[in-house]
Amino acid sequence: KGVPIAAGLGSSGATAAATVVALNELLGAGVDSGELIEVAGRAEVVAAGSPHYDNVAASVLGGIVLVDPADPKSHMILHPPEWLRVVIFLRRAGVKGKTRLMRRVIPRDIGLDEASRLAFSAAMLALGITRGLKHCVRYASYGGPVEEARGRLLESYWRAKEAALRAGALAFNIAGAGPSLFALVEEGKEEEVINAVMSVAEGYEPIVSRVSIRGAVHDVESRR
Amino acid sequence: KGVPIAAGLGSSGATAAATVVALNELLGAGVDSGELIEVAGRAEVVAAGSPHYDNVAASVLGGIVLVDPADPKSHMILHPPEWLRVVIFLRRAGVKGKTRLMRRVIPRDIGLDEASRLAFSAAMLALGITRGLKHCVRYASYGGPVEEARGRLLESYWRAKEAALRAGALAFNIAGAGPSLFALVEEGKEEEVINAVMSVAEGYEPIVSRVSIRGAVHDVESRR
Repeated sequence: KGVPIAAGLGSSGATAAATVVALNELLGAGVDSGELIEVAGRAEVVAAGSPHYDNVAASVLGGIVLVDPADPKSHMILHPPEWLRVVIFLRRAGVKGKTRLMRRVIPRDIGLDEASRLAFSAAMLALGITRGLKHCVRYASYGGPVEEARGRLLESYWRAKEAALRAGALAFNIAGAGPSLFALVEEGKEEEVINAVMSVAEGYEPIVSRVSIRGAVHDVESRR
Repeated sequence: KGVPIAAGLGSSGATAAATVVALNELLGAGVDSGELIEVAGRAEVVAAGSPHYDNVAASVLGGIVLVDPADPKSHMILHPPEWLRVVIFLRRAGVKGKTRLMRRVIPRDIGLDEASRLAFSAAMLALGITRGLKHCVRYASYGGPVEEARGRLLESYWRAKEAALRAGALAFNIAGAGPSLFALVEEGKEEEVINAVMSVAEGYEPIVSRVSIRGAVHDVESRR
């Protein structure tokens, strides 16, 4: 997968996804995508302590995936607009056991007000992605109490976020449980955002990416 | 407005909306929709105790409206599909001071798991409405801890919900703070859902409606 361990890019989820997709094809098991996500989510318990379907769903299906945190069978793939670029700020020096730690610091309960704002933001973001509305893609920046709790553990996080948004990023947030970060930007704005973030935050390596609409595939042929 | 007081149909919000829209036009104030929602939301404090922009936003703008609970300037109007019908179960005998009470019973904090499910449901519902996806419109049925707290105060609520869904309603939930209820159904299924609910719940009057995509309008001419 070429992603360093504990960098905060859902690499354990990607590994779990790749494994179940490969096993499904090799064994000809014919398991549907909802079940694949469920199995991969359970497999990720080894790395993260409890089943979370967010990373594995995107890894299995490709695209940007909405998934019911309580039931991976309820999910929807969103196809992002052509102009959307993801700038990943990869933390080369990851922290061992970091996913567990980052999950431990998040609050168990949040205010209903915050929950409503999260729900509003999720709806706006989903519409923004499917309809290519830039002002709605901005809601990927809103992480509420979870972002606040995790952001405190990541040195220069808030300065990096401010710099990225000032440089024209549509959104900036923590990648999964962290420590890697990401910005959503329009094509052409990547360099400016990278320069802004790198000038205030140390220890990150920028990678510009598009959202792949292809999930995990069993691709033995091309490797021969 | 023809809506009984304290029936749970956002009548105080509708009144506030109508008032600010009318004043805006009469005074030629040229206030934009975000500000109208803000002012109407503050006006509703008289009826409900704290500013909530949900009812007033829909009343001002028409359609189904997403609004940031913390900032009415952030909002989006969703146009519902042609086939969508709303069956309102109007509670003729409302309870005085009910909105305040219904707001008091809702939990101040909710679990992060529940908040994630609410966010997921909100996103699926928003996509369902704009894209006319029936299986996504179903998420209007999910109210999480808020529905649980309020549902307990409404006699036969859960039986009515079960009956409505069994009869083919896409969604069933409490209208605003209650006590009125609503079902989202496909055109043609109204009667079945009404019969099912009326057979298990007393004190309700069914009204079949479409979602108006017209908000509050200053319509003096047509009344002359």
